[in-house]
Amino acid sequence: MSNKTSRRNFLKAGVAAGAGLVATRAGAEGDPKITSVQKWAQELGDGVDHLPYGAPSRFEADTVRRNVPWLTADPISAINFTPIHQLDGIITPNGVCFERHHGGVARYDPADHRLMINGLVDQELIFTMADLMRFPRENHVYFLECSANTGMEWRGPQMDGVQYTHGMIHNVMYTGIPLRLLLKEAGVKTSGKWLLAEGADSSGLTRSIPMEKALDDCLVAFKMNGEALRPENGYPLRLVVPGWEGVSWIKWLRRLEVGDKPWHQREETSKYTDLMADGTSRRFTWEMDAKSVITSPSPQMPITHGPGQTVITGLAWSGHGTIPQVDITLDGGINWHKARMDGPSLDKSLHRFYYDFVWDGKPLLLQSRAHDSTGYIQPTKDALRDLRGASSTYHNNGIQTWAVNAEGITDNVEIS
Amino acid sequence: MSNKTSRRNFLKAGVAAGAGLVATRAGAEGDPKITSVQKWAQELGDGVDHLPYGAPSRFEADTVRRNVPWLTADPISAINFTPIHQLDGIITPNGVCFERHHGGVARYDPADHRLMINGLVDQELIFTMADLMRFPRENHVYFLECSANTGMEWRGPQMDGVQYTHGMIHNVMYTGIPLRLLLKEAGVKTSGKWLLAEGADSSGLTRSIPMEKALDDCLVAFKMNGEALRPENGYPLRLVVPGWEGVSWIKWLRRLEVGDKPWHQREETSKYTDLMADGTSRRFTWEMDAKSVITSPSPQMPITHGPGQTVITGLAWSGHGTIPQVDITLDGGINWHKARMDGPSLDKSLHRFYYDFVWDGKPLLLQSRAHDSTGYIQPTKDALRDLRGASSTYHNNGIQTWAVNAEGITDNVEIS
Repeated sequence: MSNKTSRRNFLKAGVAAGAGLVATRAGAEGDPKITSVQKWAQELGDGVDHLPYGAPSRFEADTVRRNVPWLTADPISAINFTPIHQLDGIITPNGVCFERHHGGVARYDPADHRLMINGLVDQELIFTMADLMRFPRENHVYFLECSANTGMEWRGPQMDGVQYTHGMIHNVMYTGIPLRLLLKEAGVKTSGKWLLAEGADSSGLTRSIPMEKALDDCLVAFKMNGEALRPENGYPLRLVVPGWEGVSWIKWLRRLEVGDKPWHQREETSKYTDLMADGTSRRFTWEMDAKSVITSPSPQMPITHGPGQTVITGLAWSGHGTIPQVDITLDGGINWHKARMDGPSLDKSLHRFYYDFVWDGKPLLLQSRAHDSTGYIQPTKDALRDLRGASSTYHNNGIQTWAVNAEGITDNVEIS
Repeated sequence: MSNKTSRRNFLKAGVAAGAGLVATRAGAEGDPKITSVQKWAQELGDGVDHLPYGAPSRFEADTVRRNVPWLTADPISAINFTPIHQLDGIITPNGVCFERHHGGVARYDPADHRLMINGLVDQELIFTMADLMRFPRENHVYFLECSANTGMEWRGPQMDGVQYTHGMIHNVMYTGIPLRLLLKEAGVKTSGKWLLAEGADSSGLTRSIPMEKALDDCLVAFKMNGEALRPENGYPLRLVVPGWEGVSWIKWLRRLEVGDKPWHQREETSKYTDLMADGTSRRFTWEMDAKSVITSPSPQMPITHGPGQTVITGLAWSGHGTIPQVDITLDGGINWHKARMDGPSLDKSLHRFYYDFVWDGKPLLLQSRAHDSTGYIQPTKDALRDLRGASSTYHNNGIQTWAVNAEGITDNVEIS
């Protein structure tokens, strides 16, 4: 078509001009994909009995969680990463949800599972899964982010892809029982100010949670995205602690002990604390502050189509609420533009943003900056280092920079 | 604990009394699951390298789509059903999304796929998948329901389970390009009033869609729940027609032809029309009216725990908007109670409802009745038959009845 036509139509459509160039004039090349009857239109495909439980196309085989055994002492106790560079929208499919475990994936029959509530309660209780199915349920879409997400970037760009810099996160709809209902069944004594959540896996992962949070919005969850929790995400039962670092979301949840003070367990003392410049550590830094990142383009998703209409997209989230605004810069922070927020804006959930523009083919320095519903604005990495020094690992919510060259190749960089 | 305590706590929790009975007094039975260290706490579990793309627990092997080959002439052209009785929340996991196809699942390389726009346009265009990735995208959670859903129930209760009476439906977050943007690229002539959408599968499924709907909220979608469409759901490209019967949501979308009148293809004449009592047929009955169903208890999900605190849950939806209210009856319509709506209320999306009550162990006649945002109220099956006779198949949105006996066994029944 002529640019004039396409531009006119495109402006009508209320989006940036340029995409009119993005198509082939029908017949102009006699595209065999169109002018011939394709093979898949000449033969019957697979029947519905093919896969009672479905799987992705074989052409999507690279949309998988990547395991990085070098990150921990033993691959049995490791991490893999959500392929956020390949995903869109805000829902993470269960098959590629980030997982982290300290003793491997405990796999057992839910009929054998029990949840115990003990400690400072009127009556210690034991629940079977069948017992729990009789309590009122709620459904919420929440992000789960490991507080070590982006941790490798504290001392400068290291990881070659947004899956590794920001992929310790997933966002699903959880179905669960408000924790306060179960605690009220047991009857929390007035001296009960803290909760110890314990997992049934071999690491016996335990975390202290203040009673105020436990009685607020925590869930004892048994489903994610409609179906049972996946084994690596705590099947059959996990604690959901909205907006808080993922390590508190105890998987394979077997016990909730009510006490009058925190327990100071390994995973809240020697680990998951923030080493400050003066050698002391910040503790109990539970809430995940507002953060955003451009997922495409990114090192794993270069721009391959050359100049012209281009889609920039990414994710933003906050443990303190929603994300009303994300700013985008193409020039390393000289000029900022409001991104287009799209899809449902839910409390403590991932938000999807887009920036549709016409790329002139010149190098880009891309950044995104999130504003959350409390007014907090995502800081630069230098601002975080000024506050907490260079030796920290956890809670790095600094602004990420991608450098895009004239060929569309994208690198993880930092600008000061 | 004593009922008194539990009642006090339960009322504090603001829910129906009775769940206080639902637990075991810790130690009372010396439950070996608690008093001993379980085997899964004594051994390392699977590592994260176990499944790069995850799968459900082996203990969830019955949460699958059920294929019913008897429903169509050949199993290659058949249907399977979402296991809605086992799901919760509103998101359908991609692995169990209802599927229906007329020539089997077309499987091919997206690099070979093309989308053509031809007919009454200023410029006929051909798009590759790479071309389409340069257009602005939107994300919406929409239900897709086959207009034949519940069709077998027109002449009375037949199917032994909600998966079969109401499982021709799924609800996912779609990512796609507003169809109007692609049509504007081609430039629709003023004489262009209708659109023909054509699939690339061997059935060459085609449907006529009025231009008004095409320019309103239709999407050309390439992702569901964040990842690429599944092959059985149209990979790599499908048309999303919000609120309209599923057959219009053309899968493996290869062509959009603009014309001045409908095409009267097979799937909109001999099929997907409603045979009326006088022998004529209703045509172009595209929109799915408000509907609801209790998914648990249901014939596949009997009440197994006996009297006491019980959760009733189900789904409601409307092609005309949202669902502000669902009513529940326990006695076949003598008394109605407002259900608790839970989770996000999104336009043309499934809604989840609950009714938490204390079952006295006496037989129940369960029904749910949806009210949509237009004020429309879900009708009885008899009311539908009075309007359209007894020979129809499609668009059965009548109220469903489940009979629960004293043992909790649940049957598909009808009351007049």
